[in-house]
Amino acid sequence: MALTHFDGKGDAHMVDVSDKDVTSRVAVAAGWVKMAPETYDIITEGRAKKGDVLSVARLAGIMGAKRTADLIPLCHPLPITKVAVELTPDPDLPGIRIEATVKTTGQTGVEMEALTAVSTAALTVYDMAKAVDRAMEIGGIHVRLKDGGKSGRYEATAG
Amino acid sequence: MALTHFDGKGDAHMVDVSDKDVTSRVAVAAGWVKMAPETYDIITEGRAKKGDVLSVARLAGIMGAKRTADLIPLCHPLPITKVAVELTPDPDLPGIRIEATVKTTGQTGVEMEALTAVSTAALTVYDMAKAVDRAMEIGGIHVRLKDGGKSGRYEATAG
Amino acid sequence: MALTHFDGKGDAHMVDVSDKDVTSRVAVAAGWVKMAPETYDIITEGRAKKGDVLSVARLAGIMGAKRTADLIPLCHPLPITKVAVELTPDPDLPGIRIEATVKTTGQTGVEMEALTAVSTAALTVYDMAKAVDRAMEIGGIHVRLKDGGKSGRYEATAG
Amino acid sequence: MALTHFDGKGDAHMVDVSDKDVTSRVAVAAGWVKMAPETYDIITEGRAKKGDVLSVARLAGIMGAKRTADLIPLCHPLPITKVAVELTPDPDLPGIRIEATVKTTGQTGVEMEALTAVSTAALTVYDMAKAVDRAMEIGGIHVRLKDGGKSGRYEATAG
Amino acid sequence: MALTHFDGKGDAHMVDVSDKDVTSRVAVAAGWVKMAPETYDIITEGRAKKGDVLSVARLAGIMGAKRTADLIPLCHPLPITKVAVELTPDPDLPGIRIEATVKTTGQTGVEMEALTAVSTAALTVYDMAKAVDRAMEIGGIHVRLKDGGKSGRYEATAG
Amino acid sequence: MALTHFDGKGDAHMVDVSDKDVTSRVAVAAGWVKMAPETYDIITEGRAKKGDVLSVARLAGIMGAKRTADLIPLCHPLPITKVAVELTPDPDLPGIRIEATVKTTGQTGVEMEALTAVSTAALTVYDMAKAVDRAMEIGGIHVRLKDGGKSGRYEATAG
Repeated sequence: MALTHFDGKGDAHMVDVSDKDVTSRVAVAAGWVKMAPETYDIITEGRAKKGDVLSVARLAGIMGAKRTADLIPLCHPLPITKVAVELTPDPDLPGIRIEATVKTTGQTGVEMEALTAVSTAALTVYDMAKAVDRAMEIGGIHVRLKDGGKSGRYEATAG
Repeated sequence: MALTHFDGKGDAHMVDVSDKDVTSRVAVAAGWVKMAPETYDIITEGRAKKGDVLSVARLAGIMGAKRTADLIPLCHPLPITKVAVELTPDPDLPGIRIEATVKTTGQTGVEMEALTAVSTAALTVYDMAKAVDRAMEIGGIHVRLKDGGKSGRYEATAG
Repeated sequence: MALTHFDGKGDAHMVDVSDKDVTSRVAVAAGWVKMAPETYDIITEGRAKKGDVLSVARLAGIMGAKRTADLIPLCHPLPITKVAVELTPDPDLPGIRIEATVKTTGQTGVEMEALTAVSTAALTVYDMAKAVDRAMEIGGIHVRLKDGGKSGRYEATAG
Repeated sequence: MALTHFDGKGDAHMVDVSDKDVTSRVAVAAGWVKMAPETYDIITEGRAKKGDVLSVARLAGIMGAKRTADLIPLCHPLPITKVAVELTPDPDLPGIRIEATVKTTGQTGVEMEALTAVSTAALTVYDMAKAVDRAMEIGGIHVRLKDGGKSGRYEATAG
Repeated sequence: MALTHFDGKGDAHMVDVSDKDVTSRVAVAAGWVKMAPETYDIITEGRAKKGDVLSVARLAGIMGAKRTADLIPLCHPLPITKVAVELTPDPDLPGIRIEATVKTTGQTGVEMEALTAVSTAALTVYDMAKAVDRAMEIGGIHVRLKDGGKSGRYEATAG
Repeated sequence: MALTHFDGKGDAHMVDVSDKDVTSRVAVAAGWVKMAPETYDIITEGRAKKGDVLSVARLAGIMGAKRTADLIPLCHPLPITKVAVELTPDPDLPGIRIEATVKTTGQTGVEMEALTAVSTAALTVYDMAKAVDRAMEIGGIHVRLKDGGKSGRYEATAG
């Protein structure tokens, strides 16, 4: 089995999708930022009072989705039709759970856009809280759902 | 304790670093992409023969480091003086371990640049192998080392 | 009445336009840069002789329209099909009047692209003349016309 | 008197600042978005409850400052050391007043960065409220203060 | 005969393509980097052993194609559906021959994207080998083939 | 002899310049666009009358220089302090000769910025005249002069 991003000689290329159908496509990706309980408290208290980390990270995730084709070398540029990024504090982690939903009407899927949105939001959470906690960890980044296009629906078994 | 990215009223701002010293700074970040054993085999065999996923991801990571201030809303633009991204196959994961080292001579640290390099390289590995494995997971992203500047040396205890 | 850029919980998102029709859309925006009479003379004389401020600003406006989705967080990326930016010296202002026309065949309107073109052209006029006049003012930026799409034709009553 | 952005032949160029001193520089710019009273109410109520237009616009302004050299053709790229964008509802306008403060330690001033931050924040307010009010107007954009560098301190007489 | 990028008054504009058909379009461009025989040997030996200049340049070319509308002022943004960049060592040059193929399904041609891919790949070869050879020359950049759209097929007579 | 852009294992990296001196650096690059005599006439007549191809290309070259680190994977971001791009019609070519001069005060040279300015200006000339002449050729791109930094002055023997 071969990787589609390489041609017969093993050289990287941007795959030809000219003949693929223009269809409605959606992808959902998820991930989390784990932190010290004190950091968690500072961030979640900020929501109610001063300094909303999550709304900054949400916006960064949305804008990150639009930069996907700039960042991922062999990714096709796509006219994104929707991006939503949800950040949910989870006291048991403790930390922030992130989920991004991206839609397009195009010739390739948008899972890279959803993953880039999650990654950018997670990096932004790290950036905003790093002054109080350098040991935060970003993880659990995976595709939860992908639908539309020839390859059909994919749903992660866990996560 | 307050988050430095918010001012007294709780509004986000890019912190004033005008009075910080211009010093040599370095940061090292790490992470991994976990995958099915078959995917691991395809990627690592590709190294020797056809289609080098790791060299594409390395380049994406290096270029990603240069886009950090575009992606992370409150991050200062910095004249990066070095970026190196190492991708090491780990059969026990199984998957690819990623480590990025970034240097600057400037007024703020470069841990966000190192983390962005790792994230972009990880996303690129996912992109290139997603046709054969949609269930890959990106994780373990953390700062391993940070040095230079007033706050001194930080080294992660594990990772 | 609610703002469409926020979901039910009040979180910002990029509105889902997947189900909107792909139609021909056009938008016209306008604005001006007001300046000292001496500055006006220098700029308008430059047109005929040396140093054409207006042609530099026109180009900046056209290129700015293409960066709209990069700048405006919740703006959809769009395949622009036409941009024209007109800069007209007005001795009564005194200053430069700017009008931008943008077209697309897509699922959302292009008024943000037209407004961004006007703003970028205006900022460029300021940049090029600021060595002789720091007190210039940019104003009057508004949408003059918007057509295409479900919400129908809008025309500003004045301006 | 000649415009410095043109050379002896009248051709545009990016002015040589190699021999200028690296000094602390600051600039403050301001502007506003005028709207219908109903729009003003929706935006300001949103602050307390659901959907904070001003915090989205603030972030867009900060990020816009970092894109200045990409947008303004003859503008030098600069290592910005601080950006703050303040948005204040003014019921008498009625609308939102915007003020941006930018600092650098460099060889040229940052008034273009401050003006770009104000413009981008203003465009974002327009974008987020345009579904309820297309007749909003952006204006009053000017430099309020500029200091540092050879040309000394400039303060606007009004505004 | 007039240049289409200027309107009736001689002002530059982005041509209106709203009424053009959305068709399959392809363009092929080519060029080369000429170098000293010793440089050629270092680069081509690197292919087999250490440090693959050509794969870095190939990736830069592919990513460059995606930045075309950012770089070329009056170029329309386009949803590229395929990019391939081939770099072939030619001992008789001596140097590297570059060919880029770009496809889209859109309203304008993609020859600028193909030319930008070739130029970016060539600049990257120069960058990577400049430490050993500053006298390299980039040349022979031209459109080899263009097809799709109203103006029909074009094939270069030589090159 | 080894290429500096690869480490001991042959992996690409952005070379560490942290310990290099911050010095004044300058680079001059040149190139040309060759065209049919009729195309040459249209472009050069446009200078005097309607539609100035050369001033659009000049601006694109200046802006292109600022995008160099975005385009060339292993290139360091640099605070450019001057860019000038000269376009001179040459009836004997026939075509346009391009020369770009770039300066910085930094830790690496600016020959890539000068070469990118020339390439972008040349591509823009092609873009603006392609409706009348598809067979234009871009060539002769080389570094004419490089000075500043440890490696000393380099001047091309011809060109």
